Amino acid sequence: MSKLNPVNIWPRNTTFENGEIQLAGIRAQELAKEFGTPAFIIDEDDFRSRVQDFRKALDSTFGSENSDLIYAAKAFLSVQVVKWLEQEGAGLDVCSGGELAVALAAKFPANRIEVHGNNKSLAEIRTAIEIGVRVIVADSLFELDRIEDIASQLGKKQAILLRLTPGVEAHTHEFISTAHEDVKFGFSISSGAAAVATKKALESKHIEMRGFHCHIGSQIFDNNGFDIAAQRVIEFMAEMKAVHAIEFPDLDLGGGFGIAYVETDTPQSIEAVISRMHEIVLGECKKHGLAIPHLSIEPGRAIAGPSTVTLYEVGTTKEVKLDGDRGRNYISVDGGMSDNIRPALYGAEYSVQLANRTSTSPLTSSRVVGKHCESGDIIIREVDLPSDVKPGDILAIPATGAYGRSMASNYNHQPRPPVIAVKNSQARVILRRETEADLLNLEVNS
Amino acid sequence: MSKLNPVNIWPRNTTFENGEIQLAGIRAQELAKEFGTPAFIIDEDDFRSRVQDFRKALDSTFGSENSDLIYAAKAFLSVQVVKWLEQEGAGLDVCSGGELAVALAAKFPANRIEVHGNNKSLAEIRTAIEIGVRVIVADSLFELDRIEDIASQLGKKQAILLRLTPGVEAHTHEFISTAHEDVKFGFSISSGAAAVATKKALESKHIEMRGFHCHIGSQIFDNNGFDIAAQRVIEFMAEMKAVHAIEFPDLDLGGGFGIAYVETDTPQSIEAVISRMHEIVLGECKKHGLAIPHLSIEPGRAIAGPSTVTLYEVGTTKEVKLDGDRGRNYISVDGGMSDNIRPALYGAEYSVQLANRTSTSPLTSSRVVGKHCESGDIIIREVDLPSDVKPGDILAIPATGAYGRSMASNYNHQPRPPVIAVKNSQARVILRRETEADLLNLEVNS
Repeated sequence: MSKLNPVNIWPRNTTFENGEIQLAGIRAQELAKEFGTPAFIIDEDDFRSRVQDFRKALDSTFGSENSDLIYAAKAFLSVQVVKWLEQEGAGLDVCSGGELAVALAAKFPANRIEVHGNNKSLAEIRTAIEIGVRVIVADSLFELDRIEDIASQLGKKQAILLRLTPGVEAHTHEFISTAHEDVKFGFSISSGAAAVATKKALESKHIEMRGFHCHIGSQIFDNNGFDIAAQRVIEFMAEMKAVHAIEFPDLDLGGGFGIAYVETDTPQSIEAVISRMHEIVLGECKKHGLAIPHLSIEPGRAIAGPSTVTLYEVGTTKEVKLDGDRGRNYISVDGGMSDNIRPALYGAEYSVQLANRTSTSPLTSSRVVGKHCESGDIIIREVDLPSDVKPGDILAIPATGAYGRSMASNYNHQPRPPVIAVKNSQARVILRRETEADLLNLEVNS
Repeated sequence: MSKLNPVNIWPRNTTFENGEIQLAGIRAQELAKEFGTPAFIIDEDDFRSRVQDFRKALDSTFGSENSDLIYAAKAFLSVQVVKWLEQEGAGLDVCSGGELAVALAAKFPANRIEVHGNNKSLAEIRTAIEIGVRVIVADSLFELDRIEDIASQLGKKQAILLRLTPGVEAHTHEFISTAHEDVKFGFSISSGAAAVATKKALESKHIEMRGFHCHIGSQIFDNNGFDIAAQRVIEFMAEMKAVHAIEFPDLDLGGGFGIAYVETDTPQSIEAVISRMHEIVLGECKKHGLAIPHLSIEPGRAIAGPSTVTLYEVGTTKEVKLDGDRGRNYISVDGGMSDNIRPALYGAEYSVQLANRTSTSPLTSSRVVGKHCESGDIIIREVDLPSDVKPGDILAIPATGAYGRSMASNYNHQPRPPVIAVKNSQARVILRRETEADLLNLEVNS
């Protein structure tokens, strides 16, 4: 058995046998042969199990009736994935008409859909209200007017949350407490904007003002940011109770739960995060004399991210001399920034494993790069790989399930890779590979 | 007439009348109404005129028979644009099978196509040789073997250039001279890799070794980098002549010619860049006793970039308090990082103009943001705009023709905007807007 390192970045049903990676019982090389490369391979049971983990953590703390797990569709969305979420009892957070269209194509129940976005179009708001979504997270005063108008026209009352900016920016290992948040989202608590919006929402006849939402960051490993955000939002709920004599029933603390991309990433367990969140919410509500609100969270990356591995085929290698005696092996694969923009966009790090064989060759300083005409088209900037990696080898990059396919482009007219679901040694296409004909599909030749 | 500032960032047929932007004689508001927003509006005559400017500069220096203008397709590609390039006498640089497919769909002559890429697939190489492309720019020793094998199978001899890394990194206002280049592309002159590749190419029976290519950077305003690169490549040509007793007929100095995105951007004129390039090439060839080679250049951004304006509709505005007395008006539009990733990816700056009316309101510190669920979804980080910009207003962002539509994604399941060509007060769609049906087109429901 080859080294499985680090273990926590691979989908749960990944094994390493005779030096080959197997995904849910299927050899990586066999998947590459059958479906071509590059390809996203999603471990269906891994995806489902992470939904279940969140659900269990919520059930054992807030209770199943008093909490909701709402998957953030932006991380990765397809009709099949929506069906898995429906079956596992999750809600769905969409932030565009397009994401809503996928949910509806999958016949996802509208009363489990939450609608986000800083600039929802009139058409998006209308569709949401017409189909009866569970809640719209309102993000501006303009939007409160629009929801009121459209709900009035449709003879409906629409449940909303107000998105708040509590003055917390949370990052992987730190959080920054700010007086004002310089972001496009939400209503600032400290500036008074949140209080104005609350009053306006309460005065709107066709709006059912259910409570508050906040989202403090992405890829967070530490609870401190969530702690401060929960404290500030619950304190604000108490202030609003004092002013309006109303206890708002819903609190949504958003997403941002971090995952491991590389060995040195050590996010907290889901159980630990939720348990701590429960402790803080209980303590703050007790302090302010509030009933415990219904709690929602919105993980996206923490469910989709670890479920998926990208398989690439090596096309060329090239030893480049650097200063001194150093060299670097450039390993070019058949995808790149069109299927994974995160390294170029965020400086994101990934891991990689030779997937089709064991090598006993010495490790050498390597860079895994894509095939795009851009020198920044780098997938992994610096990694030790066997020096005999060669054209035809298959490389597996784990933890590509979130913001990989969902942010994919056709840069250089590269067709986007398929997404293949694997489960119990069976593989099936859930999003097919684009073809050259697809690439020409929007051309108008008049 | 409202202020047209800065003048050099707008397409050449843009006018400002009664406070409204007109593109090739059509009011921005009318375009927005007819085609919806967001939309890329490409000024066909502007695009063609920049091809002509390059052609003229080459004709008056190197001469029309002794030079080629090769458009870099990655900047923006569509069938219609390929037809314009064909009519204007340009060549086409493609770097993938997909880009080649568009060229072929437009019936572009194969003998004017140059094929780039650090990791061309066997299928891409085979297609290129089969159809008889003008030249393949070879990028690795593996690739030389592949070209030789496939050309041999097809009973052909394929013309190639070798891509060299001359040890120059050129940026907007500076260049860095390096001993070794830590990039995936090309063969290093200084390490000896370029000499090895030259020998190998000359020994390949089915390869016609035509000369050398280098590309030193992007968005370059200053000639120094081109000067050094030309000197080093021509010196290398002289060395290879000494070894192999052959003068290589072709020299391709690549692209990277900068354009103005904001007022403070002051790239050199096309005439000045080409004139200086001519001077250096002549001087270096004379110094080394070489005949003047056939010269090619590969502008992409410098042709497509300034030709296009993105029109957005404002959806919401929100005044956010910052520290001290400062505030910021967040103006949300109906597109964002899905149609322009460059601000998030490269920290790129853009300009913006209220397009549908004149405002006499005072200017206020503003940020133009998109509608995506991501706080980094910013189009213009800091700009003064009239304080009365409101929902329904149309904003025009110039210089979005390169790496806008070509790098566009469906992030948040946002349909990609159309590209509308305008010319002599006529508008026509050349790439249609994606629909929700298109977004679902790759779904497999088995």
